[in-house]
Amino acid sequence: MVGGGPGAFIGAVHNRAATLDGLAVLVAGAFSSDAAKSRAQGETYGLSAKRVYGSFMEMAEREAALTADERIEFVSIVTPNHMHFPVAKAFIERGIHVVCDKPLTTTLEDAEELCRLVKKHNVVFALTHAYVAYPMVKQARALVQEGKLGTVRKVVVEYSQGWLSQPLEQTGSKQADWRTDPARAGAGAIGDIGTHAEHLARYVTGLEMEKLFADVASVVPGRRIDDDANMLVHYQGGARGILFCSQISVGEENRLAIRVYGTEASLEWHQEDPNFLCVRHANGPIETYKPGNGYLAPAAQRGTRMPAGHPEGLHEAFANLYGSAIRVMKARQDGVEPDPLDLDYPDVRDGAVGVHFIQTALRSGREGDWVDATYEAPGG
Amino acid sequence: MVGGGPGAFIGAVHNRAATLDGLAVLVAGAFSSDAAKSRAQGETYGLSAKRVYGSFMEMAEREAALTADERIEFVSIVTPNHMHFPVAKAFIERGIHVVCDKPLTTTLEDAEELCRLVKKHNVVFALTHAYVAYPMVKQARALVQEGKLGTVRKVVVEYSQGWLSQPLEQTGSKQADWRTDPARAGAGAIGDIGTHAEHLARYVTGLEMEKLFADVASVVPGRRIDDDANMLVHYQGGARGILFCSQISVGEENRLAIRVYGTEASLEWHQEDPNFLCVRHANGPIETYKPGNGYLAPAAQRGTRMPAGHPEGLHEAFANLYGSAIRVMKARQDGVEPDPLDLDYPDVRDGAVGVHFIQTALRSGREGDWVDATYEAPGG
Amino acid sequence: MVGGGPGAFIGAVHNRAATLDGLAVLVAGAFSSDAAKSRAQGETYGLSAKRVYGSFMEMAEREAALTADERIEFVSIVTPNHMHFPVAKAFIERGIHVVCDKPLTTTLEDAEELCRLVKKHNVVFALTHAYVAYPMVKQARALVQEGKLGTVRKVVVEYSQGWLSQPLEQTGSKQADWRTDPARAGAGAIGDIGTHAEHLARYVTGLEMEKLFADVASVVPGRRIDDDANMLVHYQGGARGILFCSQISVGEENRLAIRVYGTEASLEWHQEDPNFLCVRHANGPIETYKPGNGYLAPAAQRGTRMPAGHPEGLHEAFANLYGSAIRVMKARQDGVEPDPLDLDYPDVRDGAVGVHFIQTALRSGREGDWVDATYEAPGG
Amino acid sequence: MVGGGPGAFIGAVHNRAATLDGLAVLVAGAFSSDAAKSRAQGETYGLSAKRVYGSFMEMAEREAALTADERIEFVSIVTPNHMHFPVAKAFIERGIHVVCDKPLTTTLEDAEELCRLVKKHNVVFALTHAYVAYPMVKQARALVQEGKLGTVRKVVVEYSQGWLSQPLEQTGSKQADWRTDPARAGAGAIGDIGTHAEHLARYVTGLEMEKLFADVASVVPGRRIDDDANMLVHYQGGARGILFCSQISVGEENRLAIRVYGTEASLEWHQEDPNFLCVRHANGPIETYKPGNGYLAPAAQRGTRMPAGHPEGLHEAFANLYGSAIRVMKARQDGVEPDPLDLDYPDVRDGAVGVHFIQTALRSGREGDWVDATYEAPGG
Repeated sequence: MVGGGPGAFIGAVHNRAATLDGLAVLVAGAFSSDAAKSRAQGETYGLSAKRVYGSFMEMAEREAALTADERIEFVSIVTPNHMHFPVAKAFIERGIHVVCDKPLTTTLEDAEELCRLVKKHNVVFALTHAYVAYPMVKQARALVQEGKLGTVRKVVVEYSQGWLSQPLEQTGSKQADWRTDPARAGAGAIGDIGTHAEHLARYVTGLEMEKLFADVASVVPGRRIDDDANMLVHYQGGARGILFCSQISVGEENRLAIRVYGTEASLEWHQEDPNFLCVRHANGPIETYKPGNGYLAPAAQRGTRMPAGHPEGLHEAFANLYGSAIRVMKARQDGVEPDPLDLDYPDVRDGAVGVHFIQTALRSGREGDWVDATYEAPGG
Repeated sequence: MVGGGPGAFIGAVHNRAATLDGLAVLVAGAFSSDAAKSRAQGETYGLSAKRVYGSFMEMAEREAALTADERIEFVSIVTPNHMHFPVAKAFIERGIHVVCDKPLTTTLEDAEELCRLVKKHNVVFALTHAYVAYPMVKQARALVQEGKLGTVRKVVVEYSQGWLSQPLEQTGSKQADWRTDPARAGAGAIGDIGTHAEHLARYVTGLEMEKLFADVASVVPGRRIDDDANMLVHYQGGARGILFCSQISVGEENRLAIRVYGTEASLEWHQEDPNFLCVRHANGPIETYKPGNGYLAPAAQRGTRMPAGHPEGLHEAFANLYGSAIRVMKARQDGVEPDPLDLDYPDVRDGAVGVHFIQTALRSGREGDWVDATYEAPGG
Repeated sequence: MVGGGPGAFIGAVHNRAATLDGLAVLVAGAFSSDAAKSRAQGETYGLSAKRVYGSFMEMAEREAALTADERIEFVSIVTPNHMHFPVAKAFIERGIHVVCDKPLTTTLEDAEELCRLVKKHNVVFALTHAYVAYPMVKQARALVQEGKLGTVRKVVVEYSQGWLSQPLEQTGSKQADWRTDPARAGAGAIGDIGTHAEHLARYVTGLEMEKLFADVASVVPGRRIDDDANMLVHYQGGARGILFCSQISVGEENRLAIRVYGTEASLEWHQEDPNFLCVRHANGPIETYKPGNGYLAPAAQRGTRMPAGHPEGLHEAFANLYGSAIRVMKARQDGVEPDPLDLDYPDVRDGAVGVHFIQTALRSGREGDWVDATYEAPGG
Repeated sequence: MVGGGPGAFIGAVHNRAATLDGLAVLVAGAFSSDAAKSRAQGETYGLSAKRVYGSFMEMAEREAALTADERIEFVSIVTPNHMHFPVAKAFIERGIHVVCDKPLTTTLEDAEELCRLVKKHNVVFALTHAYVAYPMVKQARALVQEGKLGTVRKVVVEYSQGWLSQPLEQTGSKQADWRTDPARAGAGAIGDIGTHAEHLARYVTGLEMEKLFADVASVVPGRRIDDDANMLVHYQGGARGILFCSQISVGEENRLAIRVYGTEASLEWHQEDPNFLCVRHANGPIETYKPGNGYLAPAAQRGTRMPAGHPEGLHEAFANLYGSAIRVMKARQDGVEPDPLDLDYPDVRDGAVGVHFIQTALRSGREGDWVDATYEAPGG
């Protein structure tokens, strides 16, 4: 693991997720650019001191020098956004698989460079848009793919939070500090959570954006970065929609939600109540799907560890994503075809689409006009 | 009553609402421009044949000729949209109060003419944006007015229906027929339900629009009118928001919903579950307000007829609106000051704002650009 | 109307319900045993003074003396419980149909006498267990009748309120006063709301009780009547269940709710959210039925006045019950067969079953043992 | 770990929970009484072959023979119920701490023997009534302890499942097989899930039962054990309540739910939506508490790993329970006082209370009468 030092919460989430199903064990890390802090964090994980590094480059070099049996099989990158690129690059170039937090990078150039590197070095690269690994999101996608909704006409997706509704970055919060710093975060709400919304919509519907119009704001006085954005979207093929994200929506904790309206039926899902998927028909009772049941699509049946009615949450969704990536790594190592159900993890090219989306949204916001949102990431 | 002939549902709703609390009795009507149909409808209401008219003008003239004791005290206009103007004009000019369905008119000129006529003839004119007369919407407004939300920053309001997701107008549906005919409806989803959303947001927050950007579509092949619109809105004073309306959102019945985010707290209300108002705070449990309770604001305590927990619905909201308008009529007749709590009914100037909104949205949709949405109705 | 004087809320509910659909008009009443109060109430209803009576007997006698054209077609009895019997008797014996609030009477002897009188005088007698006239309760019943649940195995029904969790009867509340007075109410929570639960379960499932075991309490210090009761029930045919009612469940407003578990599926309905009926299957998504939709059973399609998604509530349920009773009265008057869908209103024999249930529950509570609950009302 | 061989789901749950926070690592196990199966399971966990045993006794003896540094610090017992006793006894007598699945034993004698052994050997013994380790259940308990509900008057607790609504035990299901076998399970629904309900009520309210009346049934034809039970309960101090459990409530997945009514307020919690705790007041909006927030009681703030709005589920609740037990073990090892917040884990004496409850309920069911439910476990 790179990143995840004291004060970060997402590092521990990655660790729990990666190890939940016994598919991985944390054996090495560069948890902070401060060697002492990195060491201290390594101790809390019970790591051997010689596998705890003072910098990601040291880690990449020394791990790569180990034998295949000894060295890490993949690295989890959980640093602030601006470090994703150099860290990922260092490991990819050494042939080490990567699981990286989102957004992929802070510039499109970096994102595309990673796409090319991943292709060149033929590594697995998973991006932790973990929300799509909830069983009910997989079910949503399956319903669209099976045609149960007919042709998709409208998508309403949002990610609303309230934790930055006050100028928290002026109070010493580490999380707020880097996430509102343009240099380290690249973008604000759009980058931090808007990309989750963008990815969720794309994952569920399979639709690519054609153009978008964004109304981008820094609502909190003194904030240096976007904290609220409302967008109109046209998708390729004719569907339209709304995408909005906000970190000033006071009272909202983590309201990621999506609705998809087709010609035949529609669906709705809320991340804060992730084990309920609502499907509405033109003429029939509303249906609510729940995990762990035999009536679900195969992709949705996987990724539930307990019988129906025993709630699983975001750790498990994260673990599902890790599980898919790790199983694909193993399949490659074993020279076998991976299970097709494992190939739906968000990858480096999804990351580039996300970075392109961020930049497109920011540009539309600056220009006050529709902006072409079509994009194809390299490395395909 | 004018309109509300066979096949219309809203006429009966108006009648039930107007009479629910015993404040009014239906005594006369011109239910259809077809005299026989009008007569037939009059009979189902048990009206005296001589008070059932073959045209609105006949009704206006003959009622006005009756003595004050005999003649109607007000007229309810429940015709298709394009008839609102001539009917309203006929009665206003004869000094008869009006309760009119929304949207006010199909042109802004007509709307403004009505504003001027209402002022000139000093009649009460209530527009049945009945959704704002639910007790929990009144509570929402009171919370904003009391400052419980702080300064409003963001408004998300929607009105989603699915009943026109197929080309119903090609199947002989009377409702679908006139509501998708540009000549009779003036506008489609924006006029039919978008105005409800616009009014709801304005009623709850007290904010006036500054400008808007609308993405307007006729999604169903062959449809001659807008059936889906997604809008970005800037309100005067700096708040921003989203307003969307749709009649092609399959599976949705009548999803009018609003969220208002302030600096201190936010609120959320759903019309299909009207007796629950959710308030979220920066740091405290989520609160759910319910009607009929002593902790509500005075405006919200009124308008509930049964003890808490005995659900009331849209008929009662309609009746609340009628009740306010009728009490104001009586107060005028009695030469006394009306109860301030009765003065919140949507009036003719709200109607003009609504028509201006419709036209602004359609224009923005045509032009693909932000359009100035500021407006002050005449007759103030 | 008999009863419904100042301070009573249920009288106004009956009046609104009876007149909502234009099937009835209030023309006469004995609103209070205090003639002045009766007169005052009559004026608020705009009644002719000569049709406002100082006692129910005066009303019964004088109305009966009018011609068939002039006299009331039926009487609504909305007095405290102990007056139901003499009032109903007076009108039945004069051949006047009755709509009576529940519970039917305070003694089983009286209830049975009414059953016999109703049969003898061949009048329509409807008891306002209005909750079963919600469209979604009718749908629930239809689902059971159609066999969608399979054989019913378990029923959980409750009616929880909190309004008597403090000794309100010691503070001058008129409602609390008579409802906690054994002489006027007959029974407390069991009579006031437990009978609703009993009737709801019977209406939905069609099951008759075989025996019950009741734990009956007067929880609030100083209370002279039961305010909380928890019961175990065996139904004829083998189903079992729980029935509980409470007026000391603080925070509950009017939580009447039922669950029915069959061999194939189960259903759940909550009165405070009456437009949602939940059906769960052994293997399939949860279904939520809503009113106003074409997929509903005929009995559930009736009784909705507005398109789907326009909430109706308890007034409309009451009006549905009144509508059925009135249509049956008219059919009898016209000498035609009533619509079978109208014959599901709760009648005098349901009332006797309810009174028998109350007495059985109280007896079980006193004896601390199972009590035979089988019963067949006379007059069948 | 003892138990948790192929086909068992709860063993994996224990393992994930025990290791989620890095407080424990699985190092040894006797996963099956079939040595080959045990070995196979050990391999899936990546254990050293010499720490995988063919019987629990072999494991107990050989682990006890290792040095303190080498040997297991505690054992997790996840066998069918009838094996809990001998396994626990073997480890307790060797001074090894125990985490054991519920119910504690199949006889009260065994349960009491374990209580005495735990006291004698001074080991930590945690019983995995994991549902009480959800943050919102801890908040519920804190609200009662803080007096926010006033004096508790009524408790309604249920645990409804539908998975045994068909005779699944006749189809080869391993889970259904042993859970419906009186010899291995001891009791059916009452033992499997009724004890969870009993414990949840006791944990939240702090109340001990005084007497109970149980209606116990084997609903599914051919079933040899109880699969549905409805109970009336009197608690010491005067509160009353209902407790019901069922495995034939078709359509229910895992509906464990509790309501507690006090003199001042009431609360409601549902296990299938565990991150919402509802509190209702006599006069005030309904409150909904959610995890991860600063307004929660200290006991509820612990046990959430991610920011508010990132759902955690039953694995995390299990991990909370393991965490408390492990921290208490460490404190004892270190000779320091444990954190009082860790001392709320269910222990061996809670287990004995649970077994006493099962036997009391079964006896009441057999006798058809109230049965004294007071009990004090030995070892206090």
